[in-house]
Amino acid sequence: MLSDAQHSAPLTGLRVIEVSSFVAAPLGGMTLAQLGAEVIRIDPMGGAPDTTRWPLAPNGGSLYWAGLNKGKRSVVLDLRSPAGQRAVADLVASSGADGGIVLTNAGYPWLSYDALREVRADLIHLRITGHHDGSSAVDYTVNAGVGFPLATGAEDSAGPVDHVLPAWDVACGLYAAVGILAAERHRRRTGEGRAITLPLADVALAVTGHLGFLAEGQFTRLGRPRIGNHLYGGFARDFQTGSGDFVMIVTLTPRHYADLARVTGRGAALAAVEQALGADFAKDSDRYAHREVIAALLAPWFASHTTDEVTEALKGTSVLWDRYRTFAELAAAPETLANPLVSLISQPGIGEILATGLPLAQPGTPQTPVPAPLLGADTDAVLREARKT
Amino acid sequence: MLSDAQHSAPLTGLRVIEVSSFVAAPLGGMTLAQLGAEVIRIDPMGGAPDTTRWPLAPNGGSLYWAGLNKGKRSVVLDLRSPAGQRAVADLVASSGADGGIVLTNAGYPWLSYDALREVRADLIHLRITGHHDGSSAVDYTVNAGVGFPLATGAEDSAGPVDHVLPAWDVACGLYAAVGILAAERHRRRTGEGRAITLPLADVALAVTGHLGFLAEGQFTRLGRPRIGNHLYGGFARDFQTGSGDFVMIVTLTPRHYADLARVTGRGAALAAVEQALGADFAKDSDRYAHREVIAALLAPWFASHTTDEVTEALKGTSVLWDRYRTFAELAAAPETLANPLVSLISQPGIGEILATGLPLAQPGTPQTPVPAPLLGADTDAVLREARKT
Repeated sequence: MLSDAQHSAPLTGLRVIEVSSFVAAPLGGMTLAQLGAEVIRIDPMGGAPDTTRWPLAPNGGSLYWAGLNKGKRSVVLDLRSPAGQRAVADLVASSGADGGIVLTNAGYPWLSYDALREVRADLIHLRITGHHDGSSAVDYTVNAGVGFPLATGAEDSAGPVDHVLPAWDVACGLYAAVGILAAERHRRRTGEGRAITLPLADVALAVTGHLGFLAEGQFTRLGRPRIGNHLYGGFARDFQTGSGDFVMIVTLTPRHYADLARVTGRGAALAAVEQALGADFAKDSDRYAHREVIAALLAPWFASHTTDEVTEALKGTSVLWDRYRTFAELAAAPETLANPLVSLISQPGIGEILATGLPLAQPGTPQTPVPAPLLGADTDAVLREARKT
Repeated sequence: MLSDAQHSAPLTGLRVIEVSSFVAAPLGGMTLAQLGAEVIRIDPMGGAPDTTRWPLAPNGGSLYWAGLNKGKRSVVLDLRSPAGQRAVADLVASSGADGGIVLTNAGYPWLSYDALREVRADLIHLRITGHHDGSSAVDYTVNAGVGFPLATGAEDSAGPVDHVLPAWDVACGLYAAVGILAAERHRRRTGEGRAITLPLADVALAVTGHLGFLAEGQFTRLGRPRIGNHLYGGFARDFQTGSGDFVMIVTLTPRHYADLARVTGRGAALAAVEQALGADFAKDSDRYAHREVIAALLAPWFASHTTDEVTEALKGTSVLWDRYRTFAELAAAPETLANPLVSLISQPGIGEILATGLPLAQPGTPQTPVPAPLLGADTDAVLREARKT
């Protein structure tokens, strides 16, 4: 049963069959589900390889699986048997004008566009792959190949520094949602379905290009230098307060910089240095060129003030800043649970957990998360509905 | 003029008015443009603050701006004047059933949903903000607050390690594209527009929750430990080859691990350790628990083989791996330009640069990039068209 609120969610009625694992495809499907679509995730007997993936809850349940499959229906089928494969095809074929949409990162021949188009001529089929040549890749290998780990970390880092956020998986999942919605619009206007392939490595390559890193690499022959936590081409950096906390301080405009110089009481010293160097610290490029000098002048102010004092001093200024927190601090912060998109939900198989919903705030579409299903919880109901149609 | 290929791009006909700056909103608009939409970016006189943003080309042109505005039309207006503001409203109002869509990260009252709904009742308006309480935030400050920098980097890192990829900006831009397409589907079915707010900080919070970090922080009270380049909950790590290169090696399944043990000739030693420890290295959790032992046994093999030898040995195995490259190496690699989504384009104002198109591969939609416009290049044409309608 849909609530009234869900009825006015923008994707109400849309039906997506997802055969997936890990981050990208599940996130793509979940994003559509959080906008009101009915997303049916189909797993093989016993679950896909992500069923038990870390992080785990104290009782052993996968917080990873629970986080990436919220609001879906879960169907388990013997995908090695012709009957199981036929059941998937029937679900794809039978689901009306708003159905016939497949999202997968699996390469089974029976699940391919060509195979399923036989049962549904206007099929929309989006498959996530590794590389565009068909070879395998995961977020960690893609990120190594694309350049970021050799530009991340302290200036004197010896080797690569991988970031912990699986950013390419996240971007890939969101691109998948975009691709499906764009194709659905086209189908609605023309009646035509389409086959879409989305290689994870191409997501990374495309975004690396969009952000200018590729063209920069072409021109410099060295690429972006390693500059620790400094912002490239401006002035931003981390500072440690007298309380031992770290804060990120960002100045993107002359006003940000002027406010920072003023509240730290370093205005005169900075102006003297600026004049002596023939620089103009109102300009991004000059703040960047002299970033170590500026940081050295500011650091003692942060070190000699508590985090509370820093907070008080920066309040009401234009300076962009935040305190670095651990995940545990984020989870414990009162403002986290106060955010409309965060709830303490009762997750079947795990218990009470902090979960997040949709960051797109809009009337008629709940931002609050709903739990993930237990693996296979909807198998009977979904197959029963399919027999009726 | 649209080519035949562009006519069958899925978003052909859709028209988006973008008043934007920096990464997220421009990336959202560009993603729609790369899928066939007409995206008109409107800038104030002289350009928005990102017009001169680093990285820069040798001639001073912004590779950042060029990268994030490909395939758009550029209009410059005096946005401080009533006439300029009225011109924007006219563009929003006049553009037919597929128009009336605004994407912005600007907070001008005259550009708000409430103001523009007066000229277009079925307006779709998506505004990107900092925090959901309306306060400012940028990728760097959001990332500090959400937990990743204190979990990234070597185990003995003293402070935060920021990643260089503006991952939240990227995710936010893609969420914006999703939000607009979902709203457009709803409008097509119901005639109703909607106001959507997308706070950058909420994108980070939502994704951190989806990936399980928030619930993990809730349970552990410490959050994810810092483990350098190791994969959490499995076995993957960087190794240095005898050539001095670094490679990322990933084993997500028992087969990956068995292949790695075999090709490195460490099968017997690993099995002996496994038995002595009472462990089962076919299990992710046991490979993770004993990751330092496994890595220590494997590292000498990598160190005593050249990168070519490592490549040859891993060829044909199931092991997931890649060599770490710099951005410059990525730009120079023959396979980069051979990728269908990469082209050397002639970028007005800059010259020949490597640029990337759409990672969503599909018949009828070109993946190849087209250049960004010069700032204001389409002002006259767009205003002339508006007068005609």
